[in-house]
Amino acid sequence: MHTRERCIEADLVDPLAPLRQEFELPEGVIYLDGNSLGVLPRAARARSLDVLEKEWGVGLVRSWNTAGWFALPSRLGDKLGRLLGAGDGEVVVTDTTSLNLFKALAAALRIQQVERPGRRIILSERDNFPTDLYMVQGMIDLLQQGYELRLTDDSLSLQEALSDDVAVVLLSHVNYRTGTMYDMAATTAQAHAAGALLIWDLAHSAGAVPVDLQGADADFAVGCTYKYLNGGPGSPAFIWVSPRHQARFWQPLSGWWGHNRPFDMAVDYTPDRGIRRFLCGTQPMLSMSLVECGLDVALKADMAAVRAKSLVLTDLFIELVEARCASHPLTLITPRDHAVRGSHVSFLHPDGYAVMQALIDRGVIGDYREPEVLRFGITPLYVGQTDVWDAVEILRDILDTRAWDRPEYARRSAVT
Amino acid sequence: MHTRERCIEADLVDPLAPLRQEFELPEGVIYLDGNSLGVLPRAARARSLDVLEKEWGVGLVRSWNTAGWFALPSRLGDKLGRLLGAGDGEVVVTDTTSLNLFKALAAALRIQQVERPGRRIILSERDNFPTDLYMVQGMIDLLQQGYELRLTDDSLSLQEALSDDVAVVLLSHVNYRTGTMYDMAATTAQAHAAGALLIWDLAHSAGAVPVDLQGADADFAVGCTYKYLNGGPGSPAFIWVSPRHQARFWQPLSGWWGHNRPFDMAVDYTPDRGIRRFLCGTQPMLSMSLVECGLDVALKADMAAVRAKSLVLTDLFIELVEARCASHPLTLITPRDHAVRGSHVSFLHPDGYAVMQALIDRGVIGDYREPEVLRFGITPLYVGQTDVWDAVEILRDILDTRAWDRPEYARRSAVT
Repeated sequence: MHTRERCIEADLVDPLAPLRQEFELPEGVIYLDGNSLGVLPRAARARSLDVLEKEWGVGLVRSWNTAGWFALPSRLGDKLGRLLGAGDGEVVVTDTTSLNLFKALAAALRIQQVERPGRRIILSERDNFPTDLYMVQGMIDLLQQGYELRLTDDSLSLQEALSDDVAVVLLSHVNYRTGTMYDMAATTAQAHAAGALLIWDLAHSAGAVPVDLQGADADFAVGCTYKYLNGGPGSPAFIWVSPRHQARFWQPLSGWWGHNRPFDMAVDYTPDRGIRRFLCGTQPMLSMSLVECGLDVALKADMAAVRAKSLVLTDLFIELVEARCASHPLTLITPRDHAVRGSHVSFLHPDGYAVMQALIDRGVIGDYREPEVLRFGITPLYVGQTDVWDAVEILRDILDTRAWDRPEYARRSAVT
Repeated sequence: MHTRERCIEADLVDPLAPLRQEFELPEGVIYLDGNSLGVLPRAARARSLDVLEKEWGVGLVRSWNTAGWFALPSRLGDKLGRLLGAGDGEVVVTDTTSLNLFKALAAALRIQQVERPGRRIILSERDNFPTDLYMVQGMIDLLQQGYELRLTDDSLSLQEALSDDVAVVLLSHVNYRTGTMYDMAATTAQAHAAGALLIWDLAHSAGAVPVDLQGADADFAVGCTYKYLNGGPGSPAFIWVSPRHQARFWQPLSGWWGHNRPFDMAVDYTPDRGIRRFLCGTQPMLSMSLVECGLDVALKADMAAVRAKSLVLTDLFIELVEARCASHPLTLITPRDHAVRGSHVSFLHPDGYAVMQALIDRGVIGDYREPEVLRFGITPLYVGQTDVWDAVEILRDILDTRAWDRPEYARRSAVT
């Protein structure tokens, strides 16, 4: 039987609890949306002033070399790689997840064009994060080469959809809505057996669940740094390319940062021999520099401990909601099976939008996703069992009192 | 006859001189590289702390709406548009110049595919900024539709290269090396008369010289905010699309920020009806927010006054170098004709690399560009006549004493 007292006791002996002090969390808030935007690392203030005043203000253009700006996508990429089972020189931090997906897709299609010509299907899931599907649609429309996007209705139907016309598979490792997680190694093997290359979107995985790209024999991976990695709002994304693919393709967003010798100012593009060929244009240094503050905290934690705590907390959240809000129309859409669960928990509720507004008003910040999804991100670096207990109690109170049923919580149309 | 005293007197009555106080310039530095990386606006420190501590730290995910993050590309775009002769809703600040060029090129090629099918030439200059040419090469390689990049040797041969197979022309308004400026209206008319669409790269124009995109009947323009606009290292770039083209093409980097209703999470991409369809993924908010600090200073200045001062200063620089360094092998490659001069001045010197290192060591920061080019950016918002005088005296001294002829100034290979 869970009690608040037991939650407090558990937090006291939680080996990851001290890491919470590395972040600045606002008073009166239980933050369960770290899978949308991570929190502010304490080190970020000093780092941002350093970049602003010393590197930019005083160093000025010299800082491209003296402050290591030009090398930063690789230096951060190497650090991030340690969380992903990747070696040095295999990851760069750059651009956005959408753009990195476009680069990976172009590379994968071109490799297949050579190795398995004629394959024209790009396979993904209907429930994949929409921007991933939009980028595929943009690519197909651009190429005019007869490519088609095939969408499966769920992960179970992936195998049957993997016919011999599939060139590339594009999957989110952890689904943004349900939190369902693929077995990366098994699914990669499945795609390879069908002659397809696979691009993993790690947006909801990096820093949240153990990832072993090399161990899974993966091909390509992209993801973002502003969720579980706490890089800051819209901080640059990342791309990993297996060393066996890196040098095989000139990705088409071939800006000067990807050039082998960018400052030669040569007329012809010659790609860098390694992962830097996946760079394009000049990167936003202030936003990129702060990625390191979040990464450094993540690297202090043992990923096995993070995973263990994540499962304890998500179990707790599910059990408490089901026990204490049992009379309300909540439907769990996150897997109960640990093996296929990421680090967030989602429940459907017919008035999900209004319920989430009421929760946010009471200081429990999760988020709402269409349709009807209440989504709660569980970030072991700064969330504890007492937070989970308190959040569920507030949810229970809102549901019991119908506090969500107010005009100001009614759904508005567009967020813009 | 120029003297230092006359320069001091001129600075005292310079109507733009007070704007220098809006920036933090390091002690002991004469900064003539604002065309590579602009300087730090005083307002940026407070703004960055605000974004960091209030918007990110406290507002967290709510700030996408409450702090206007999601609207920022448009809000900044509208402000920037005033410097470019563009209306509201015609510019977004987003991504990098290279990426925005790719979007514009894809759009222009698609329009031509419909209107003037069969045209397969993309025309540019051999001396265009390399990344522009690299992006074209990437696009051609990706499309596999028989497109070719044709390069002219200079702007004079543009007319003869404008044959009836040219689909798109891609030009830098102000050349990054020589500072040569095109007549935007005349050149656009020339391209249109030949049935071609024209993409302008305004990297060395925006904030430096008067630009009137609507007046020139231009098609597409891209550019960066970190040079004359003082947006910060690698701050997000911009794209302008003529309203007559905006809704005609689904640009292929079609991420969710360009969707008509991004938070509906629909499976199918439906582009925004206006300029926001040229957005792609989530933007780096810290770097993007600071763009406003530089823009706000630029908007305080009358662009005609900026242009007048730029010409006075570049004239002064040319005259002083030619008078006081006459015995040295310096060759002016920037036009003397005001009508075709941007806001920087370049001289060739056979030992240009070493000379620039010696200048930087003495606090005169310009930059070196292959081959042999000493490049000096003249930024009227914070450079005065006395700065120009002092810079040329230091150059003269370095040349007279051969202070550049030291091993530590010898050229190294790659900057990386």
